[in-house]
Amino acid sequence: MFEFQTVRTALSGGVLDVRFDAPPLNLIGPELVKDLVDLVLALPASPEVRVVVFSSADPEYFLPHVDLTKVPQYVAEAGRAGGPDDASLGMLWRKFSQADVVTIAKIRGRVGGAGSEFVLACDMQFASRETATFGQPEVGMGAPPGAGALQHLTRKLGRNRALEVLLGSADFTADEAAAYGWINKAVPDAELDALVATNARRIASFPAAAVHETKRVVNGLTLPHVEDVRADARRFQEFVQTNVLQSRVALLFEKGLQDRGPVELALGAHMVDLPVE
Amino acid sequence: MFEFQTVRTALSGGVLDVRFDAPPLNLIGPELVKDLVDLVLALPASPEVRVVVFSSADPEYFLPHVDLTKVPQYVAEAGRAGGPDDASLGMLWRKFSQADVVTIAKIRGRVGGAGSEFVLACDMQFASRETATFGQPEVGMGAPPGAGALQHLTRKLGRNRALEVLLGSADFTADEAAAYGWINKAVPDAELDALVATNARRIASFPAAAVHETKRVVNGLTLPHVEDVRADARRFQEFVQTNVLQSRVALLFEKGLQDRGPVELALGAHMVDLPVE
Amino acid sequence: MFEFQTVRTALSGGVLDVRFDAPPLNLIGPELVKDLVDLVLALPASPEVRVVVFSSADPEYFLPHVDLTKVPQYVAEAGRAGGPDDASLGMLWRKFSQADVVTIAKIRGRVGGAGSEFVLACDMQFASRETATFGQPEVGMGAPPGAGALQHLTRKLGRNRALEVLLGSADFTADEAAAYGWINKAVPDAELDALVATNARRIASFPAAAVHETKRVVNGLTLPHVEDVRADARRFQEFVQTNVLQSRVALLFEKGLQDRGPVELALGAHMVDLPVE
Repeated sequence: MFEFQTVRTALSGGVLDVRFDAPPLNLIGPELVKDLVDLVLALPASPEVRVVVFSSADPEYFLPHVDLTKVPQYVAEAGRAGGPDDASLGMLWRKFSQADVVTIAKIRGRVGGAGSEFVLACDMQFASRETATFGQPEVGMGAPPGAGALQHLTRKLGRNRALEVLLGSADFTADEAAAYGWINKAVPDAELDALVATNARRIASFPAAAVHETKRVVNGLTLPHVEDVRADARRFQEFVQTNVLQSRVALLFEKGLQDRGPVELALGAHMVDLPVE
Repeated sequence: MFEFQTVRTALSGGVLDVRFDAPPLNLIGPELVKDLVDLVLALPASPEVRVVVFSSADPEYFLPHVDLTKVPQYVAEAGRAGGPDDASLGMLWRKFSQADVVTIAKIRGRVGGAGSEFVLACDMQFASRETATFGQPEVGMGAPPGAGALQHLTRKLGRNRALEVLLGSADFTADEAAAYGWINKAVPDAELDALVATNARRIASFPAAAVHETKRVVNGLTLPHVEDVRADARRFQEFVQTNVLQSRVALLFEKGLQDRGPVELALGAHMVDLPVE
Repeated sequence: MFEFQTVRTALSGGVLDVRFDAPPLNLIGPELVKDLVDLVLALPASPEVRVVVFSSADPEYFLPHVDLTKVPQYVAEAGRAGGPDDASLGMLWRKFSQADVVTIAKIRGRVGGAGSEFVLACDMQFASRETATFGQPEVGMGAPPGAGALQHLTRKLGRNRALEVLLGSADFTADEAAAYGWINKAVPDAELDALVATNARRIASFPAAAVHETKRVVNGLTLPHVEDVRADARRFQEFVQTNVLQSRVALLFEKGLQDRGPVELALGAHMVDLPVE
């Protein structure tokens, strides 16, 4: 049904498994964005898909962040979903939130930046206590997050905890993220597959109209205003071009950013001792 | 002071104990709705009642759900509180939220469907860790909840956890409900009576004007818009009449719905293998 | 840089430590309000201050409540920040929320009343598990809180838990406050200094524009409307002058209010057996 470069899919009983498989570390680049655009555009014509479960083929990395060497390219790809005026990951992630299908993130490994914002745009998030980590490193790099974290975390965590997460740019364990309501639940890794499968199959078996209307009402009460999504995206694009962000990111690349290894595995801890001008 | 069929009452020190006693399992039917309408209409003229504590005479069932064989009848009863255009449990529960008296739900046994929505409309909820359970089985039956769960759970739990509860239609333990903020607190059963009594007596002893004004301000920030309450009620009435819901409920009745026994004691687990057309 | 009567300050690496030191028990009176007004007015011209950490020189009292013998005096002082029409602690605390600097409350000892409302207006709150306590005793005294608790607690805790805290007027431990989202986190006392120092230093080292814009967006989504802040302040002033509040406070003074000792150390427990007319 679907042909993708960076994700593997399997459909069973109304549940579409979508497994990210974009070596070397599942960065959100043009190819992965292309596949997500194709997926979200195909869903309305695929009523046999009732629930989508997102997981990762890489046990260490779920979606760690965007490919910082290809920002214009992935932004252009995102524009295929929303039109040239809405070429942003924020508007693309929002399309998943608004879809009739129910989206569940089954998380092992690192989630960060726009990867965290994708997860926040999913309807539910269940994570492995042992391996999942969460972070919004953007402020540490030099930009307010641009694809939903400001909106979702503020609404869900409250002012004080949202500011801690956003301004602190630190990594959070799955248990910490669950304690703050960032994700639904952290469970032992050995229980994660069964928990998600049970939830997904149940919902896929329920009458579609009741599921769609319920999600529609909840969306009306919780999704950010589209103008806020657009403003966040524009602001991020502006900050990405500043000298201070560019020089901080350049030093992070020297240290090993976007390579498998210690910097990516503890990115929050590396937001220190970077240039400030 | 009050004469009721389905609840027993006792007034002491400004605290009115209202104990649900509607065998066989405290279903929300016309008689129980009639008593709740009488109660909420009598409260404004009863300034000696400062706090109302709701509990159940049945240790297994608090308010498990509506009597699905008598929907038109209990809806008609509810109309006595809100007028014929506002004949709905959602509008009736809202009257409790808006009352000057402070309402506390002291929960042992099963809370579900419109019973959960009644509890959500109370000002506080304290539950027995050993015996209380919570669920919104409506989507599993084939309808978005109609009497407040969409509004209250979404505001309190955040988008992801509200969708998990609403779309999943599963049963939650008291500890799980407390972890999500659905209820104030789950405590050991042996501590529940003292905890509620202490809170109720304290508040009943505080100056009335300060209590009323505080509740009024909090209500202004948290209660759903009346148009949303009405829309939820209308939508529920429409979904209740669909073939898919009727056929699913019919099969549940064959299995034992509304009888004391295994289906009612684990209703969430029985939302599977039901007809979908 | 700053000269104060009731607080001691030290600036290091962009982090300004502000230690409350207003014996006998850090009551919020005219002197302390004067210092806070001076501080908040000086911050815009002090870009070298990136983060402010508030702590207490008194291990038992952080900010227990206002000096109830000097309400007109401290209100007049507060007016220097907001103009005579906005002479209220609520409007003064709001200025801290809106400041570009990031404010962190590092809490040991008792936080209550307008002291809790100051803490709620800070961007983050970290507390000692062993010594910090939190309470809003205002309703027990006879008035809805007037300086932000209605707004912040309702938004952060949800309707049910906000009503429990506000109407119950009880004391909460640091762990209870963290479980409800009132504060960010409760940690062992021995870990508190390091936790706060790490967070403060990190944020102080991040690019200022990214921090300021992030806080500005979060504020837009979470701060109460200014008209609500003003209404809460006016209401509090009216209730403070009622006979019932005055007589309740008078009895509390007879018991030991505003003295170091058992009443102040368990103020929530002393809101009982007070006059109600």
